[in-house]
Amino acid sequence: MPTQPTIAVVGATGAVGREMLAILEQRRFPLANLRLFASPRSAGKSIIFGGEPYPIEPLAEGWHRGIDLALLSAGSGPSKQFAPAAVAAGVDVVDNSSAFRADPACHLVVPEVNGDTVIQARSKRGDSAPRRGLLCAVPNCSAIIMLVALNPLRQAFGVAHISVSTYQAASGAGAAAMDELMLQTHQTLQGVAAGELTRSVFPEPYAFNLFSHNAGIDAASGYNGEELKMISESRRIWGDPALLLSPTCVRVPTMRAHAESITVTLKRPATEAEVRAALAGGASVRLVDDRANNAFPTPLKASGGDEVLVGRIRPDLSRVHELADGRSTLDPGAACDRWSLFVAGDQLRTGAALTAVKIAEMLV
Amino acid sequence: MPTQPTIAVVGATGAVGREMLAILEQRRFPLANLRLFASPRSAGKSIIFGGEPYPIEPLAEGWHRGIDLALLSAGSGPSKQFAPAAVAAGVDVVDNSSAFRADPACHLVVPEVNGDTVIQARSKRGDSAPRRGLLCAVPNCSAIIMLVALNPLRQAFGVAHISVSTYQAASGAGAAAMDELMLQTHQTLQGVAAGELTRSVFPEPYAFNLFSHNAGIDAASGYNGEELKMISESRRIWGDPALLLSPTCVRVPTMRAHAESITVTLKRPATEAEVRAALAGGASVRLVDDRANNAFPTPLKASGGDEVLVGRIRPDLSRVHELADGRSTLDPGAACDRWSLFVAGDQLRTGAALTAVKIAEMLV
Repeated sequence: MPTQPTIAVVGATGAVGREMLAILEQRRFPLANLRLFASPRSAGKSIIFGGEPYPIEPLAEGWHRGIDLALLSAGSGPSKQFAPAAVAAGVDVVDNSSAFRADPACHLVVPEVNGDTVIQARSKRGDSAPRRGLLCAVPNCSAIIMLVALNPLRQAFGVAHISVSTYQAASGAGAAAMDELMLQTHQTLQGVAAGELTRSVFPEPYAFNLFSHNAGIDAASGYNGEELKMISESRRIWGDPALLLSPTCVRVPTMRAHAESITVTLKRPATEAEVRAALAGGASVRLVDDRANNAFPTPLKASGGDEVLVGRIRPDLSRVHELADGRSTLDPGAACDRWSLFVAGDQLRTGAALTAVKIAEMLV
Repeated sequence: MPTQPTIAVVGATGAVGREMLAILEQRRFPLANLRLFASPRSAGKSIIFGGEPYPIEPLAEGWHRGIDLALLSAGSGPSKQFAPAAVAAGVDVVDNSSAFRADPACHLVVPEVNGDTVIQARSKRGDSAPRRGLLCAVPNCSAIIMLVALNPLRQAFGVAHISVSTYQAASGAGAAAMDELMLQTHQTLQGVAAGELTRSVFPEPYAFNLFSHNAGIDAASGYNGEELKMISESRRIWGDPALLLSPTCVRVPTMRAHAESITVTLKRPATEAEVRAALAGGASVRLVDDRANNAFPTPLKASGGDEVLVGRIRPDLSRVHELADGRSTLDPGAACDRWSLFVAGDQLRTGAALTAVKIAEMLV
């Protein structure tokens, strides 16, 4: 790939696509040219990038000619339809959809966790043409935020089990879901009853409400698609098929940052000082854990930022009680193998666009 | 107590007090007279009950003369100040605050769970004057909702461990908190930045945000007061000091119903059919568990209702994987000792006023 490649952003008008463009600008991504693609109904419009207008082109066969690296965020359908030919023609593709995440030929990457797999694949392929492009997938947003937060604990102590309940923002379902939350909130404040709210994206009312994640339920397990992604993708990214996860995914009326209540069982017990030190040194992790002022991670604190905020760090009191020898709290300095955390990360950035751009940076 | 007692509602102008009055009307509570008390700034106003205006009296020494049964919801301070003299004078008191919940002389009651303790205490005391009143406390709202949902599982299979993450509504912090959520939401829609929102009740912005529960953090354990209440009150109500709980309490921008993501470890393994049958027969429990239509409990579905909604009933997949013998889901008909649920209950009714009135009904 040239050091100043031609980059394509596919799905440029979506919530994640616009965030990708903002991040490419912010990080001064080294590009020679930028091509923007979207559905035919946006074709002919343009988007300003670096002070210049760039036309939006319709996605169609042969779209990838002249492109070195493409960031895709147009949904699974378009990815399945348009990515394979591009990769076959030598274009590196970073796909934000779930289309290829389970494909063994695709690299499922959280840069902070397993970015080395991309570096290795890049160095292995050599530069002799003709060659295939590298296909990378951005994992599920809830999985990314959880894995960035827990990776330092895995590196230091090993992770055997994760119990997680999510508090997921509208942005995870795209710009239309964010619009629906805003519209329904307006309607509610104007006195419209919950049953009469305009519902286009979600079957449940969303304003001043929350609901089990809208992904379909797997009949065999009773788990929804989002929860099953968190399980399978975490195992793949950590290379640990025996990892145990117990996820419950819930959509809440926030805009663009997910929060997660996590209890993690470590393979080796650790003291509070050790747990805090590991988390404090974690890549893209920032501790927000001020007990005296009750200041912990929130979606608003995470919104627009590049880090996963981690707080409410405490030994699981049920484990302390279980192990207790007449104690009802952990002695300072004693080790425990189960810890609870509350984390928040920007879904559009860490959960999608920022991770995609970081992968692209490793490909250039 | 006379069969048509004189009832007092203390804190009549608050969110819970108004709900108490609505429920007394709805359930046609047998009362001869109604007395309403609130802080001095509401004195002189009146509230319509059963079509008649009732004056609001200021709470002051001697307030309890002529009253047979008092429902208190004015906060811990007024309860501590005004309840003991009333009980000493023979008035039965149902207190909605946390003032007496840990007091061994106080009956901590969820009618569906341990209502028999009130019946027994009432029959034991006899009718000879002078006598003390009975002091009953309504438990923490999150604990009530969880215990109503899990009690049928405890009765059928025993409960060893509960992991719970809450999604708590504004109403748990009173009418002022509900007003703050509405005001901040209005401001946000008008373009006010999150940092500029009017904050009187909570330190964190509340509109389109969520935050770790505002109760103070216990320095020794790292748990907040709400979480510690869920632990100690659940143990007391179930009479099981060895019960293990791992709670994380979170405030979300919903109005008046709490939701909870629960994973419960049973003492004896149960099949899915057994778990569903037990829950379906639970007092004040209603199953909302339609996998095909992704229809599960939500705060809006629970709002205004008298039941705790229970859904997302499934064997904990991490436990299934742990026990797996090459299986990745539980065989239909196989037993499991760990189950996940998602529940929702009206905080003002089940979590407070309805439970108080049900206790009062057992006292009359």
